[in-house]
Amino acid sequence: MTTRIVELRRGILKKNDELAAGLRGRFTSAGVLVLNLVSSPGTGKTAFLERTLRELRARGAQAAALVGDLETDNDARRLAASGAPVRQINTHGICHLDAEMIGKHLEGWEQVSLAGLDYLFIENVGNLVCPSSYDLGERIRVVLLSVTEGEDKPLKYPGLFNSADAAVITKIDIAGPCGFDRELALHNINEIRPGIRIFETSAKSGAGIDDWLDYLAAQAKPS
Amino acid sequence: MTTRIVELRRGILKKNDELAAGLRGRFTSAGVLVLNLVSSPGTGKTAFLERTLRELRARGAQAAALVGDLETDNDARRLAASGAPVRQINTHGICHLDAEMIGKHLEGWEQVSLAGLDYLFIENVGNLVCPSSYDLGERIRVVLLSVTEGEDKPLKYPGLFNSADAAVITKIDIAGPCGFDRELALHNINEIRPGIRIFETSAKSGAGIDDWLDYLAAQAKPS
Repeated sequence: MTTRIVELRRGILKKNDELAAGLRGRFTSAGVLVLNLVSSPGTGKTAFLERTLRELRARGAQAAALVGDLETDNDARRLAASGAPVRQINTHGICHLDAEMIGKHLEGWEQVSLAGLDYLFIENVGNLVCPSSYDLGERIRVVLLSVTEGEDKPLKYPGLFNSADAAVITKIDIAGPCGFDRELALHNINEIRPGIRIFETSAKSGAGIDDWLDYLAAQAKPS
Repeated sequence: MTTRIVELRRGILKKNDELAAGLRGRFTSAGVLVLNLVSSPGTGKTAFLERTLRELRARGAQAAALVGDLETDNDARRLAASGAPVRQINTHGICHLDAEMIGKHLEGWEQVSLAGLDYLFIENVGNLVCPSSYDLGERIRVVLLSVTEGEDKPLKYPGLFNSADAAVITKIDIAGPCGFDRELALHNINEIRPGIRIFETSAKSGAGIDDWLDYLAAQAKPS
C-alpha cells in the first residue's frame, strides 16, 4: 500500500514540476517577479501581504496576488482593500496550491496581464507541511513565522524552511508580550537554512517593511 | 489520476477506521479517557498539555501522553518535565498521526499500562487539515485555537473544527496585545460546530485550567 502511494505521489510531483517549469518560463519572459508565501495558519500572511501590496502601489509598482484557501474567500476580500488585483483559489480541502491551479487561475484573469506586472504574489494555503513539495513556478519562496508560534518551528518543519529563499518574522510588535526569544529563532532558522535572508517585520507598525520592499525591488531588477 | 487517489485514500481511511475502532474498544475496556489534541502549529498544544498533566498529577490522577511530530522529540522532552510518562511518535514527514502509529507506540511502552491510567492524551502533529480524517480511537477530540491566530480559522478549516468535541482557546493572557476579538471567535466556532464546549485558557497564567480539569474529571467518570 505504502509503495503505491509513494509511486503515485512521485507521479503527481513529476507532473507538477513540469507544469511549474512551464510557468517559470512564462513568468521570466513576462519580466514578473513571482513569490510563493508559505507559513502556518495564523502567521499573518494576509496582513503582511496586504501591507506589501499597498506600499508597492505607493511606490508606483504593479503588483497582483493569487490567494489560496481551503474554503472561504475572506483573504481575497481583505487583500482587495489594497487596491491591487486579487484572485481567490479555493482548494476544497487540499492542503496546498499546485502549479495546475496557478495556471488555471491565470487564464481569463481579466484585470491582469503578466507582462504588465512587476510582482505576482501567491499566498499559499496555511500549512507547514503540504506546500513544501509543490513548486508553483515561483522565483522566490518566502516562509513566514510569527513571534507567537514558538522559536522551534524551523526544527520541527525542516522541509518547508529548507526549501525557502527568504524568511519573514511577523508580528514583532507583540514580541515582548509573547516572550519571543529572537536569538533562538534566528539560530534555529539558520540551522535549517544557513545564511537565508531574514526580515523582522510588523504589518501593524510597519517595522521592517522598507527593508523588505528594497529587497523586492533589488530582486525584480533584470540581472 | 484523481480517481485512483481518492480510491486509495478511501482504502487507507477504511483500514484506519477499523484499527481506530479496535483501539477504542481497548480504551473503553481499560477505563481510560483518551483525548486527541489537534491545532495549527504554534497554538500552544504542548504548553497547554504540560500544564494539564502537571495539574492532573497534583489532583492524584494518572495521566500519560503520546506526542506526534514530524521530526524532533522536543515536545516529548518538554512534556516529560511534568513527571508524566510521555512517548514521542515521529511521523517522518507525514502531517498527521494514524491509528496504526498509536497501536504500535502503545506496545512495549514499559512505563504505562492502559488499565492503570485515568487519561491518555494524544498530541497530534500541528496541522489544521491532515488530522481531521484520521480517527485515533479517541473519545474526545479537542481543537485548540490561540488568540494570536485570527478569529477566522474555524471558517477556513471547517473540517477540523466540525470534527471536534471540545474547543480550547489558548494564550488568553496575550489577548489584549493581539487585538483578539473574543465575540467573533466564539461566534465563528459556534457557526461551524454549534453548541461545542469552549474553554478560554492560558497555560501561563492558569486561567480557565480549573474548568478544563473539572470537565475532564466529569468525562472520565463511568457513565
